[in-house]
Amino acid sequence: MEIILKPVARVINSRRTPVDDEWGNIISEIVLEEEIPDSAFVHILDFSHLEIIYYFNQVAEENMLYARRPRGNPGYPEMGIFSQRNKNRPNKLGLCTVELIWHRGRSIGVKMLDAIDGTPVLDIKPVFKEFGPVGETRQPAWVSDLMKDYF
Amino acid sequence: MEIILKPVARVINSRRTPVDDEWGNIISEIVLEEEIPDSAFVHILDFSHLEIIYYFNQVAEENMLYARRPRGNPGYPEMGIFSQRNKNRPNKLGLCTVELIWHRGRSIGVKMLDAIDGTPVLDIKPVFKEFGPVGETRQPAWVSDLMKDYF
Repeated sequence: MEIILKPVARVINSRRTPVDDEWGNIISEIVLEEEIPDSAFVHILDFSHLEIIYYFNQVAEENMLYARRPRGNPGYPEMGIFSQRNKNRPNKLGLCTVELIWHRGRSIGVKMLDAIDGTPVLDIKPVFKEFGPVGETRQPAWVSDLMKDYF
Repeated sequence: MEIILKPVARVINSRRTPVDDEWGNIISEIVLEEEIPDSAFVHILDFSHLEIIYYFNQVAEENMLYARRPRGNPGYPEMGIFSQRNKNRPNKLGLCTVELIWHRGRSIGVKMLDAIDGTPVLDIKPVFKEFGPVGETRQPAWVSDLMKDYF
């Protein structure tokens, strides 16, 4: 079974190459593709946060499936690909919760998006509080270490 | 530009038809597709919550782009497709944060997944606290009304 998707929008920002950290200060513009009408963004400013599903189009189609240490750090445990968020993963989907800053016509401005300039966007969903993790969130210690300079 | 994806796993649960509400009590099994090795789930139980990206494979390819009232409710405002989470949307991607209950070999058991039996899964990511919405979340009043019986 193959599923064919088309970008609905594209990322414009100042980051031209993939780097691991310091995404927090980048403001990205997300501009709709031609086939999508302006009305797709009607009342989007009613929401403070959005979830952006995007496609890691610059990641090679190889070495996606094996368990590995996040960022190759020997101090971290070997984790399955679905037990980490490494971008070399089957289907190369990225996912990020962003802060919505502005909306003008066919564009929105967002903060905290960890995607580089030119990245194809596959979906944009408003954050509903009711969909948030229910109960206490548990994660291993390496995650906070890995994330310490991310935003 | 076309992007071709393949399911990495499949949903097994008791819900055979799409209905709007009462997803909270359903335990779903997510079983890996043949091409994905068991090791994809190594140490997944280190996490309490996962994000599941899936494909609304039963949704028809029509009427996806226009702004509309969520659930057709005349009491709700007309919202752009990226200002709501309606399943009739470009690329038909679903996204849900679930509670991880168990892991056995090629399967995991999860709670709070709003996908029916047979749904193709495109990605599974562990929830990192650091990726959560930063600051206060704002949403319009209709969202809480729409979500009141969802889980």
